[in-house]
Amino acid sequence: MEAASADIGTLCREASVASRLLASAPAGKRDQALTAIALGLRERTGEVLEANRADLDDERARELTPALRDRLSLDEERIEAMAVGAEQVRDLDDPLGEVLEEKTLPNGLRLEKVRVPLGVVAVVYEARPNVTIDCSALTIKSGNALVLRGSSYAERTNSALADVVRDALAASGLPEDAVVLASGGGREALAELATREDEVDLLIPRGGEGLKQALKEVATVPVIYAASGNCHVYVHEEADLGMARAIAVNAKVNRPGVCNAAETLLVDRAIAPEFLPLVLNELAGEGVELVGDAETVELSDGTEVGAASEEDWDTEFLDLKLAVGVVDDLDAAIEHVNAHGSGHSEAIVTQSEEAAGRFAREVDAAAVYVNASTRFTDGFEYGMGAEIGNSTQKLHARGPIGLRELTTYKYVVRGEGQVRG
Amino acid sequence: MEAASADIGTLCREASVASRLLASAPAGKRDQALTAIALGLRERTGEVLEANRADLDDERARELTPALRDRLSLDEERIEAMAVGAEQVRDLDDPLGEVLEEKTLPNGLRLEKVRVPLGVVAVVYEARPNVTIDCSALTIKSGNALVLRGSSYAERTNSALADVVRDALAASGLPEDAVVLASGGGREALAELATREDEVDLLIPRGGEGLKQALKEVATVPVIYAASGNCHVYVHEEADLGMARAIAVNAKVNRPGVCNAAETLLVDRAIAPEFLPLVLNELAGEGVELVGDAETVELSDGTEVGAASEEDWDTEFLDLKLAVGVVDDLDAAIEHVNAHGSGHSEAIVTQSEEAAGRFAREVDAAAVYVNASTRFTDGFEYGMGAEIGNSTQKLHARGPIGLRELTTYKYVVRGEGQVRG
Repeated sequence: MEAASADIGTLCREASVASRLLASAPAGKRDQALTAIALGLRERTGEVLEANRADLDDERARELTPALRDRLSLDEERIEAMAVGAEQVRDLDDPLGEVLEEKTLPNGLRLEKVRVPLGVVAVVYEARPNVTIDCSALTIKSGNALVLRGSSYAERTNSALADVVRDALAASGLPEDAVVLASGGGREALAELATREDEVDLLIPRGGEGLKQALKEVATVPVIYAASGNCHVYVHEEADLGMARAIAVNAKVNRPGVCNAAETLLVDRAIAPEFLPLVLNELAGEGVELVGDAETVELSDGTEVGAASEEDWDTEFLDLKLAVGVVDDLDAAIEHVNAHGSGHSEAIVTQSEEAAGRFAREVDAAAVYVNASTRFTDGFEYGMGAEIGNSTQKLHARGPIGLRELTTYKYVVRGEGQVRG
Repeated sequence: MEAASADIGTLCREASVASRLLASAPAGKRDQALTAIALGLRERTGEVLEANRADLDDERARELTPALRDRLSLDEERIEAMAVGAEQVRDLDDPLGEVLEEKTLPNGLRLEKVRVPLGVVAVVYEARPNVTIDCSALTIKSGNALVLRGSSYAERTNSALADVVRDALAASGLPEDAVVLASGGGREALAELATREDEVDLLIPRGGEGLKQALKEVATVPVIYAASGNCHVYVHEEADLGMARAIAVNAKVNRPGVCNAAETLLVDRAIAPEFLPLVLNELAGEGVELVGDAETVELSDGTEVGAASEEDWDTEFLDLKLAVGVVDDLDAAIEHVNAHGSGHSEAIVTQSEEAAGRFAREVDAAAVYVNASTRFTDGFEYGMGAEIGNSTQKLHARGPIGLRELTTYKYVVRGEGQVRG
């Protein structure tokens, strides 16, 4: 069956109707649909690859950078990875129906706080077609309907993938409109989607700053913005310096273009003369461009370190570039991190339990690490099975957004005729 | 000490600094401050009443309706009730530090998901001065700093109450700026408060539609809007009709001006001829203005029932007025409630477990009642000790907003040098 190509308003209404059916569908059926998605992907790999080739051959795709073309490209291995991903989500615990709280009130009312789906989740994404499957798997498992809006570059690929999902839903006795795909329509369609308050319960943008800003201007539905990460590694005076070096280097160079990569290294003054020359040399050896405060530059021992501007401490480089600063002590480090960090992932390296405890308590961030790399903030790494994004907001979901973060709760209260006096 | 009378921006910055100190203060100190608030209120009752008299005597207060003057008025009893309220909040379990999840990841990282304060909560409220104390108690207990913006009518009263709170904080070794009071400045000050994204983590408006609309237009900080309640009582064909009558009448007349009062009564066709004449007669006897669909009017048996307009089914009357409709069956009732309800509180009266289960699952609302009045949706009734408002949003907090709803969480991850491969 073809994914519907109706206007956004119609798609949202269809998804909303489907969401009510999906919300009361048993876990068995939702899991069956995920099995059917995996099977469908394997059986229809050729069809998906053909659609993907057409997208790549399209003249619109010619203007893409090699990196973006790579993101858009599928092969058998990538499709198999999507199938395995859907099976992994299927095998997670059902998040629905969990009783979060249960009590009998003095008047005899029996109160249950029960986990239920949000309803309709909308995801706006750019080139990667795997998002089509990843988000479908997470929303189906969590009993939510999904409105997808992908990039026009990936139109045919996303449509082929959405067809697999919708057929799997139908084959499992679930409404195929539980996943609908919109494409085209530009900024107007985006604005329409972001203001369907009666139908869309949550919108998650997965894209760059341009998309974020466009949404901030128009959205009236709740949005969880993908996190930006200005993350720090702080090396305390009581750190194991070998460990500190390994963590600082890993947090920066393991994958510099992602939000949980480190952007600033802070070093206690007491150990700076011993630690800085070694770590700066190692970072430079990994191709990292270094900028630092005056003390760092002074202690760089031949490694090239530029002068850091005020702006550098607030910048998410997303690249092989690192700002390095010397701080007085733990207090100064906490103050610096809280002043400049984006509340994503912050690490301290120390053998002192007391310093670790204070840093963990007083640093205001989604994730605080003691003696580990900031790179671990991730739904898969956290054992949540998957993630649909990562939040630095404090309301609703903080950190990785997995299955449970796609739910809300309701109170179900049972009585025998109680009325209020 | 006088509550600061600085501009909103300064107050927000002060509250933000204080919030970090409060967040790491032990439960003992936060509880001590609540004890000191209760004591302060009792010792300084005269001072508060004098301020209240000055507000009531002010020419600005002359334009207030008698109902609003009553809301603004304090007496010894009302002040004692605030003191008792502060003590009750003190005696609730500490919401902070709770470990929501704890696991060791395959790589040996030990992950804890820990409940922490939001940071700075802002509350904008209208005439009732008790909000000053209620919100202070809830935010201090939950480790949050509070920016209060009260009505200019209650300026002196709120200021006297905020002084009691700030002195109690200082006497307990906590920063007095953990509670700051702003007043005046009109819509501009409100807009300023609603856009302090770097300092304000949550804004809760407690006021009418005008305030809500004003905020919707300008707010960039997260806002949880006080719920509007278009609540239904549905009498299923298998209901105990005596119980149904008591619940319908209570839900409407117990306190018609609040959000958990019923606005619509739905009755299954099978029992309408038996049930409607009795319940309509009883409701009319309680002074309720009735409007109904054609079948209800026909079955009214002499009780005056006007013709309901299409709009009536979507209206929160907040008054002694009720819309009454006959429905085919459970399916039709669920459809009506989901189409017209505001997702606040919805009740079914039935002896059928199956019907109750379906209504509870399929109705999309913060609270669903089986054989009980909708009037129970309330933080006190739910044993949460208190509430700062009530939410019909699905994200973060749904239903009563108590201590736990004023918190977020952070991941604290401890390792021995783990880096990502």
